[in-house]
Amino acid sequence: MSNIFEEIQNANNAYSANFGSKKDLVMPPARKTAILTCMDARLDPAKFAGLVEGDAHVIRNAGGRASDDAIRSLIISHKLLGTNQWLVVHHTDCGMETFNNEVMGNLLVESLSTATIGKEGWKNVAHDHGSPEGKYINWLTIEDQRSSINEDLERIRSHPLVSKKIILRGYLYDVRTGKLTEIQAA
Amino acid sequence: MSNIFEEIQNANNAYSANFGSKKDLVMPPARKTAILTCMDARLDPAKFAGLVEGDAHVIRNAGGRASDDAIRSLIISHKLLGTNQWLVVHHTDCGMETFNNEVMGNLLVESLSTATIGKEGWKNVAHDHGSPEGKYINWLTIEDQRSSINEDLERIRSHPLVSKKIILRGYLYDVRTGKLTEIQAA
Repeated sequence: MSNIFEEIQNANNAYSANFGSKKDLVMPPARKTAILTCMDARLDPAKFAGLVEGDAHVIRNAGGRASDDAIRSLIISHKLLGTNQWLVVHHTDCGMETFNNEVMGNLLVESLSTATIGKEGWKNVAHDHGSPEGKYINWLTIEDQRSSINEDLERIRSHPLVSKKIILRGYLYDVRTGKLTEIQAA
Repeated sequence: MSNIFEEIQNANNAYSANFGSKKDLVMPPARKTAILTCMDARLDPAKFAGLVEGDAHVIRNAGGRASDDAIRSLIISHKLLGTNQWLVVHHTDCGMETFNNEVMGNLLVESLSTATIGKEGWKNVAHDHGSPEGKYINWLTIEDQRSSINEDLERIRSHPLVSKKIILRGYLYDVRTGKLTEIQAA
């Protein structure tokens, strides 16, 4: 029976067999752009923004949040590799809207296994093995997409290592239509 | 004159005009997979791993490192959205191999603008406005790709919030050939 690792390796064999001129791409992004967005499986930033290999840095985490690590990546992107146009893209129906720090901390204390969501919110199925460690993490959840986009734009703009030359814009991606809408600063 | 934001919006108009059945995709990744990889512009994880919208979580940062934020994202990916197969993919010719914490801290003290790299390493061009803040950040640079992959696998495996049920594998992506090679644990 085939598994995901074999399937990925097979797909990669086909991709690398037709690699063509991509072998000559250089490290700095050709279009001097970086996109910060969510890890959500429904989002393909290259496809929804019309990018090809070599064009832009893509930074992704749960929520597309301007975490310390996203800022680490953005600073490297500008300082060493010359990007000067950054997009922050959050999206509708984001998993980060379905919980908060307290919910996640409590779920993880009981079990590390996958929980299920119902009308009354998240619930553990298994009660196998948990850890209090989740209570020490800020999960960077989202209450309202426009607010989270504006907060992240503000955090990036006011960071002492972000050059004033960067052009920064925020967008909301709609997972039901594929449409990207610019969100004007609050 | 067109700019990147207009170009992206135009590309997105074309993408969303043919969105089709993607409108019905659900939040949990269909192939129960998460990929942690680098933000490098030359990498398109969907293409190099044969993924389509809805298949897998994609987490990206500078280096594809198992930072606290990448771990935050991976825990959410398994605990709430059911992924149980994770890939860590670093790559050849990574920008993270070209500097270390000291170099980056010193560059940023002098200027926030883009530096250039020559035979003697990174050098500032502008000396406009800097900040000591870069000296307080761990940039998570890479000395050797096999070591960084193994360290990240080890950090993820031994994290108290990572379920033992997760199948975790490390890979090196070659930017000259497009090939993905599994890296066996050291």
